[in-house]
Amino acid sequence: MIIVEESISKVLATREEELCWDEIVRRAHQFRKQGRQTVVVQGLGFVGAAVAAVLAGALGSDGQPLYFVIGVDQSSELGLQKVASINRGESPIVSVDKEMTSLIMRGVKKTGNLCATVKQEAFELADVIIINLPFSVVDRFIGKPDEIKVDLESFREAVHVIGRFMRPETLVFVETTVPTGVCEKVIVPVLRAERERRGLTEPLYLAHCYERVMPGPNYIRSIRDYWRSFAGIDDTSAQKARQFLSSFIKTSSYPLWEMKNVSSTEMAKLLENSYRAANIAFIHEWTLMAELIGVNLFEVVDSIRVRKGTHDNMMYPGFGVGGYCLTKDSLLAQWSLRNFFESNLVLEMTLKALEINNKMPLHTFDLLTDLINRPLKGLYVAVCGISYLPELADTRNSPVEILVDRIEQAGAAVIAHDPFVKIWPEKPNVQLAQSLGDCFNQADAVILTVPHRYYSQRDIETWFADFSRPLPIVDAWNILCDEKAHILHDRGFQLVGVGKGHWHRLGYHHQAKTA
Amino acid sequence: MIIVEESISKVLATREEELCWDEIVRRAHQFRKQGRQTVVVQGLGFVGAAVAAVLAGALGSDGQPLYFVIGVDQSSELGLQKVASINRGESPIVSVDKEMTSLIMRGVKKTGNLCATVKQEAFELADVIIINLPFSVVDRFIGKPDEIKVDLESFREAVHVIGRFMRPETLVFVETTVPTGVCEKVIVPVLRAERERRGLTEPLYLAHCYERVMPGPNYIRSIRDYWRSFAGIDDTSAQKARQFLSSFIKTSSYPLWEMKNVSSTEMAKLLENSYRAANIAFIHEWTLMAELIGVNLFEVVDSIRVRKGTHDNMMYPGFGVGGYCLTKDSLLAQWSLRNFFESNLVLEMTLKALEINNKMPLHTFDLLTDLINRPLKGLYVAVCGISYLPELADTRNSPVEILVDRIEQAGAAVIAHDPFVKIWPEKPNVQLAQSLGDCFNQADAVILTVPHRYYSQRDIETWFADFSRPLPIVDAWNILCDEKAHILHDRGFQLVGVGKGHWHRLGYHHQAKTA
Repeated sequence: MIIVEESISKVLATREEELCWDEIVRRAHQFRKQGRQTVVVQGLGFVGAAVAAVLAGALGSDGQPLYFVIGVDQSSELGLQKVASINRGESPIVSVDKEMTSLIMRGVKKTGNLCATVKQEAFELADVIIINLPFSVVDRFIGKPDEIKVDLESFREAVHVIGRFMRPETLVFVETTVPTGVCEKVIVPVLRAERERRGLTEPLYLAHCYERVMPGPNYIRSIRDYWRSFAGIDDTSAQKARQFLSSFIKTSSYPLWEMKNVSSTEMAKLLENSYRAANIAFIHEWTLMAELIGVNLFEVVDSIRVRKGTHDNMMYPGFGVGGYCLTKDSLLAQWSLRNFFESNLVLEMTLKALEINNKMPLHTFDLLTDLINRPLKGLYVAVCGISYLPELADTRNSPVEILVDRIEQAGAAVIAHDPFVKIWPEKPNVQLAQSLGDCFNQADAVILTVPHRYYSQRDIETWFADFSRPLPIVDAWNILCDEKAHILHDRGFQLVGVGKGHWHRLGYHHQAKTA
Repeated sequence: MIIVEESISKVLATREEELCWDEIVRRAHQFRKQGRQTVVVQGLGFVGAAVAAVLAGALGSDGQPLYFVIGVDQSSELGLQKVASINRGESPIVSVDKEMTSLIMRGVKKTGNLCATVKQEAFELADVIIINLPFSVVDRFIGKPDEIKVDLESFREAVHVIGRFMRPETLVFVETTVPTGVCEKVIVPVLRAERERRGLTEPLYLAHCYERVMPGPNYIRSIRDYWRSFAGIDDTSAQKARQFLSSFIKTSSYPLWEMKNVSSTEMAKLLENSYRAANIAFIHEWTLMAELIGVNLFEVVDSIRVRKGTHDNMMYPGFGVGGYCLTKDSLLAQWSLRNFFESNLVLEMTLKALEINNKMPLHTFDLLTDLINRPLKGLYVAVCGISYLPELADTRNSPVEILVDRIEQAGAAVIAHDPFVKIWPEKPNVQLAQSLGDCFNQADAVILTVPHRYYSQRDIETWFADFSRPLPIVDAWNILCDEKAHILHDRGFQLVGVGKGHWHRLGYHHQAKTA
C-alpha cells in the first residue's frame, strides 16, 4: 500500500521534473547570452540548498543576478521532494532564518535564476559544479579505529556522473567534508578517467573549499559572511576558485585563506570539528568529578571563561553530542590515515573524545536511575527535547536516541516532547506528546535533554501548570536555574542536574566538611 | 669540601637572619600602631615572592603602605638564600619584569614594610597568613592513574607550623594549587587540631584563592591586574578574603569571583591548567598526521584560529610541555579522586593528554634520527634552548630534559645552548656552550627546542656566521620560517620541522598526487 503510494508520487514528481527540463536548458542559454555563468550544485541537503540560495542571491555590479543556479539531487523519494520544493520557490530545509526562504522565493519566482532537477544532464550546462554530496560514516564510533567504515562508493559513483557530463573547462568546486586525500586520490582520478574516456585532453580544474554552515538564525550569513579556506590542485584552479568565492563571499570582512594544497583544506575541516568534539568530551569527565565532589561546574566554567583567548571556549556540562559533523569528522581523519596513507597512527585523544561523547547520554540515564532508586521496568519516562541542538528541528544522530534506547532497554517506555520536532524519523515508534502537560500526565519521571528556549525561558508557574503532581526530574543542561530548581524541590520534586551535583544539597554554602 | 662551604654559608645566613629578627618584630608593632596589618607569606618561590612584592607595594588611600609584609621560607640552603636576597632588597626570582625588582627594592630599602625570615615565630605576628607552599607530584605521569604520588606530608607539616603559631583571629589564605579536598580534609583539620591543643576556641577563618601568575614580562601584573576566584569555609572567611583581595587586586577591572565552596576553587585551578595541557596534547597527534600527509599545520592552525571564541586558542605544533603547573595539576585532580573521595573515576582525556605531552619531545628525537639516517652513537648534538618557555631562565620540568636523556641513551653527546640559562640544575653534566658558534662547531646535528626570540629573530646572515659548515637541523617550533629554511636548504643544510612536514618537500604547490 505504502509502496504503491510512493511509486505514484515518484511518477508525478518525475513528470513535473521532465516538464521543466526544457525550460531549464532554455534559461541556462539565455543567461549565458547575457554573460552569466551557470552553477550546478550537486546535493540539496543542509549545505547545498543554502549554497544554492546564496548563489542565486549573488548580484553583479549591475544589480542583476550573477549566476544561473541549478540544484541537482538524486531521483530518490527524498531527492524528488527537495527538487520539487525548490521549484515551488520553497526551502527544502526547515530553518528559522527567514533569509533562506526569501532568497529561494526570489530566485525562483522573481529573478528566475534558481531551479532544481534530478537530471544528470544538468552538469553539461555548468561553468562551475559544486559538490555538496554527503560523505558518511556507517556507524557511531565504538572505540575501534580499525573498524571505522565510510560510504566511499556512493560518493565515488556520484563523482563519476560529473565526469561523464562536465564540460572540459568547468571548475569542480568541492565543498563536502571528506577524509584527507579524497580530492587527490579519488575525485581527481575519477574525473580524469571519465574525461579521458570522452577524449577530453584539457587540464582539469578542481578546488576544495569546505563550508562552515551553522544551523539556526545565521544559516545564510554563515555561508556568505564568514571565513573560507580553499586550495586548488594547480595555480589556475586556485585562481578560478578565488574568483568564484570572491563573487559571493563577503571577502572585504572575511578575506580568503588560500592553502598550499587540497590536503590542507581537507584536514583543516576535520581538525576544527574534532577540536570542538574533543573540548566537549574533555569537560564531560570533569562533570562527573564535579558531581562526585559537590561542585557546581557551571559556576566553575563561568569563572574560568573570563580568561579570554585561552579559556573562553571551555564547554559547559551537558547531555551529549549529535548532528552530522561532530559525530563523524574525526572518524574520517582516522579512516584516511589507515586507508589512504597506510599509517598505523591513531588519533588517540581525538577518538577517545568521540567514544566519551557517544557514552555521554548514558550518564544522564545513570542520574535518572540513582534519582528514582527503583527498577525502571514498566515506568514511563518523559523526555523533553529530541533535536541535536536547541532551536532546531534536526534529529540527525541526536544523542537523545542513545538515551531513549537505554531507557527502552531497561524496560521503561518513553514519551517524548519537542517544540520543533513533529516527526522523529530515526525513532518512529517513540510516542510524541503534543504538549508538556500531556507528556507529564503519563510520566513517572522527567528528563530535560535539549535546552530549547521553550524550556529554559519557561517561568515557574507555567511549569507547575503542566505538572499534575511532583515528579523526579533530571536536568541535563541546567535548564532549570537554581531558583526554579529550589522552588520545585520545596514543592516535593526530586531533582538532579548534570554537572551541578544535587541542587538541594548545593544549598549548603561554606560548610567545611572536615572528615 | 662543598659540604663545608655550604655549612659556612648557612651559618652566616642564619646569623644575619637572627640579627634582624628583633627588627622585624619591632617594625611589625610599629606598623600595627599605625593601623597597618601584617601579612606573612609562607613560601618564597615563584608565586610567594611576587605576591609579597605586590602586597608590599599596595598603598592605602593615604598613599602609605597598607601592609607590613614578612616572607617566610624554610631554613634550607635555598630558603636562606631567598630570605637573604629579599632582605638585601633583591628579587629571589630572576625575571624580565622590572616591576618585580623595583617593588622589592622599594619595600625593603625605602618604605621598610618588606622583609623575610626563616623564623616560624613570624606567624605569631600575622593578621593574614598566605600559604604559597609547593604541593608537588613525585614523578612525571607514565600512564598509571593509581601510581600517582604526591608530597602531602611536607605540605601537612608546614600547615602544622602555622597552627602552632597563628593568632586566633588570623585569616589563613591558601594560594597553593592543591588536590580538590585539601582545604577541607587536610588544612582545616590540622589547623583546628593545633588550635584546640593550644586551647583556642575561636572560629577558624580560612579561604582558598588560587593565583594565575604568569612568568615573563607580566609577572607582577598577572597578580595585581587579573581575575581571581575565591571561596571561604564560612561566610565570615569569605568576607575577610574579599576585603583582603580588594586591597591589592585591581577589582575595578577584574571583579572578584566568589565561589560556593573551597572545593570549587581548588577544582577550578586544576581544571583550567588541565584544559591547557589537553589542548596541547590534542594538536600533537594532528601534528604527526600533518607531517605524514605533507600538510603545513602552522598554516592550517592559523586559518582555523580566525574562528574567534570557539577555535582561536587552538595550539600550534611544538616541542613539549614543561614547568611546574601543566605537568602536574591534572595529576593532583586524579589523585584526589582516589585518595579523598574513594572514587574509581579516571579522568581519561585529561591523563591521556599528560601521557602524550610527556612523550612529545621524543617525536623531535625521531625526526632527528630520520633526518640524519645513521646511528647516533658517538655523535654530538647541539640542543638550542633549555628553559620550558621562551624568554625565561626557568628549567623546571623542561621537556628538553626528556630529549637530552633520549639522545644520551642513544650514545650521543649533547652540547646545549640557551641565551637565558647559565646553569641547568636538573642536568648538571650537560655541557653548556657560551655561544651558538661554539655550539655548532662541535656539533653533527642541531635541534632548535625553544622559540626564544634570540633564535627566531636571528637573521639568516647571523645564522650563517655561526655555522662553519652545513648541518642537519630539526626545528621543533617553526623558529626558522619557510624563507630561512629554504635558503639554508639551498646551501646544503638538511632540514625538518615539527608539524610542517619537510620544508624542502613543501616547496611543492598544488601538485595533485593521484596515486
